[in-house]
Amino acid sequence: MLCCMHELDGPLTRLRRSHEQAVLELLRRHGPLSRAELGDRSGLSRTTLHDIVTGLVGNGSVVTGTPHVEVRKRGRPVEKLSLNPAAGEAVGIDFARRAVHVAAVNFAHDVIGSASEAHGADLSWPERIDIAGRLLATSATVQLDALSAIGVGVVGPINDPGSENARAQGIDGLPDLLRKQFGVPVLLDNNTRLAALAEAMWGAAADSSDVLYLRLSHGVGGGLVVGGALHRGRNGLSGEFGHITVDPAGRPCDCGGTGCLETRASLDAVLHRYRETGGRADDLAGFLDAADAGEPSALKVLERVGNDVGGVLAAVCHAVGPGVIVIGGELAEAGPALLEPVERALRQHLMPMARPHVDVRRATLGDAGSALGGIALVLHESPLLSHYPQPVPEENA
Amino acid sequence: MLCCMHELDGPLTRLRRSHEQAVLELLRRHGPLSRAELGDRSGLSRTTLHDIVTGLVGNGSVVTGTPHVEVRKRGRPVEKLSLNPAAGEAVGIDFARRAVHVAAVNFAHDVIGSASEAHGADLSWPERIDIAGRLLATSATVQLDALSAIGVGVVGPINDPGSENARAQGIDGLPDLLRKQFGVPVLLDNNTRLAALAEAMWGAAADSSDVLYLRLSHGVGGGLVVGGALHRGRNGLSGEFGHITVDPAGRPCDCGGTGCLETRASLDAVLHRYRETGGRADDLAGFLDAADAGEPSALKVLERVGNDVGGVLAAVCHAVGPGVIVIGGELAEAGPALLEPVERALRQHLMPMARPHVDVRRATLGDAGSALGGIALVLHESPLLSHYPQPVPEENA
Repeated sequence: MLCCMHELDGPLTRLRRSHEQAVLELLRRHGPLSRAELGDRSGLSRTTLHDIVTGLVGNGSVVTGTPHVEVRKRGRPVEKLSLNPAAGEAVGIDFARRAVHVAAVNFAHDVIGSASEAHGADLSWPERIDIAGRLLATSATVQLDALSAIGVGVVGPINDPGSENARAQGIDGLPDLLRKQFGVPVLLDNNTRLAALAEAMWGAAADSSDVLYLRLSHGVGGGLVVGGALHRGRNGLSGEFGHITVDPAGRPCDCGGTGCLETRASLDAVLHRYRETGGRADDLAGFLDAADAGEPSALKVLERVGNDVGGVLAAVCHAVGPGVIVIGGELAEAGPALLEPVERALRQHLMPMARPHVDVRRATLGDAGSALGGIALVLHESPLLSHYPQPVPEENA
Repeated sequence: MLCCMHELDGPLTRLRRSHEQAVLELLRRHGPLSRAELGDRSGLSRTTLHDIVTGLVGNGSVVTGTPHVEVRKRGRPVEKLSLNPAAGEAVGIDFARRAVHVAAVNFAHDVIGSASEAHGADLSWPERIDIAGRLLATSATVQLDALSAIGVGVVGPINDPGSENARAQGIDGLPDLLRKQFGVPVLLDNNTRLAALAEAMWGAAADSSDVLYLRLSHGVGGGLVVGGALHRGRNGLSGEFGHITVDPAGRPCDCGGTGCLETRASLDAVLHRYRETGGRADDLAGFLDAADAGEPSALKVLERVGNDVGGVLAAVCHAVGPGVIVIGGELAEAGPALLEPVERALRQHLMPMARPHVDVRRATLGDAGSALGGIALVLHESPLLSHYPQPVPEENA
């Protein structure tokens, strides 16, 4: 009786979407088709097909035309339907604390460009949007006028994440400004969660549908991808690995808690600890160089961080059993000096039968991760696009 | 490019399922319909509809007949299609360590009966199946010959859980024996995970689609329901909350790890601790009575367990952000003497912004939980049944 309580749409809405997806899929596989051919191949009635095609032409996904070879000597030429080659480009923007990152994919979901620009901490939203627009405009291949939607990552927790109604502290007006600038729907989500989604789609975990992503940066956070989709949790609160308690008697955390992982594994915490133990470098680059050079105090700090991180990851693994763990953020640049202690602690805390399934990898998408995640969000959340240009072996090739 | 890599079926298989669901939904809403009426209402072509209906009649979901009022004076009577009133009953069986539990739902997914029988620890599978058959046969309203599938819960981790190919140590031959006895597909899953699903469908968390279920019993385990579906994780390893480390310097656990929650919160561990601190009762009933009577040593033990449990739950909450936490198992019978310390510790370890969203409840399904979860499994995993008898307001009522 309650098994379907979580369905968002009725079966008939879902049916219509399936019809749309099937039509788009057929056009993608077979190239231009006439209405009659589409009818034969889809099994849809003339009336239903007419409705579906009218909708797809109306929203610009499908265009009509008459191929030269098809012009008959007599009678009306047969109109063919095909995918709109100018449609379906998607753009992602990450408004990080002190930088704007953008990325764009083409119609085949290939990443065709990404760009970044650092800025001061107090830049206004209009100024940051100007940066994004400039970065996108100079990526010559992005067809802004053919955009279907923009996926945007921002810092901090989001209410109603992934939607056009997303709200968060400090972003008032941002969605409206973006809509005005680009004239398309704007989907908003937490940028660390988006980086998780991107690593699962294009990055270190592109082969796995269940991914735990941890970012070790100025803050410590992450995201879970479950069954290929971003898991958000109630009120958008999930992936907050940085606020799992590591030491109940530890230091106060910015979140208001005590002894959170973030108090020991954030960049500030790590550098603070490094200097406390006699380390000489006073910025991240210096610290990473020292670790690279095998300096004992740097390695010892990374060993401790790895131990804390591994313990937290083990707890999360027992709960959700991810296929792949991806570690990103600036601290991951330490490489094996960090990842090896992480894996050691993880295995030590995991129940033995779970140990063979651990797979810890370093993130591969770098700065562009969250902007790419914005694109992934658009592709995931838009029912039309999500099944749109997925390449499969050609039947008739 | 990779956004659809996790789809299990191609769009055309999904399309067929949507067709089936739409036909079943129309018959449920409108009662018996002719093929012509189904065609009009579904938008499907005659050929497609013929295929779909043939399949549904073939698997027994739909029956054909000629209502008396429809018999015309001339010409062939119009055949009407309707849902098979004898179909769709589902049964769940839980093979616990020392008991068999069964439950059954009718066509409208109402629970029409459940039953249990305790047995010795060393009973063979054929003997335990006999118990299940007897319990089911004496539930007069269960139409065994109309069963679509049986959902079965067993102890321990499962490979390929929820499917007909499920495998686990110690259950060799069980699926075959059940198939032989009942003549229907047998879906198998871990019984604690099934209890989680049942609590999310019919029990304490029936209003939430994101549920964390923790069972405090001879073992400590649980399950996660994510977006209304059971989350299984890679290799079926998820919900293993009992093996999250609580005290790295603690006692060895049966899992091979050290200081797991189970070493402090299992029934044995709790009773052991209670006797160590001077408690007089030597079984669970006596301990629960003592706690009920406000005996300080019993309350102190529950306070400590609650503190450990709350800490682990906080870690999992940060990771997955459940809407509701459900606590079941025999120890939950202690009620507020356990749940209040759990909530206190949970709130203490949660980041402040997450605290308002905590909702801890005691499980409501008791012994029948896992057997009901077996039914939920059948309803969830069978694409036909899952959209089948969902009651919605009648359009034509």
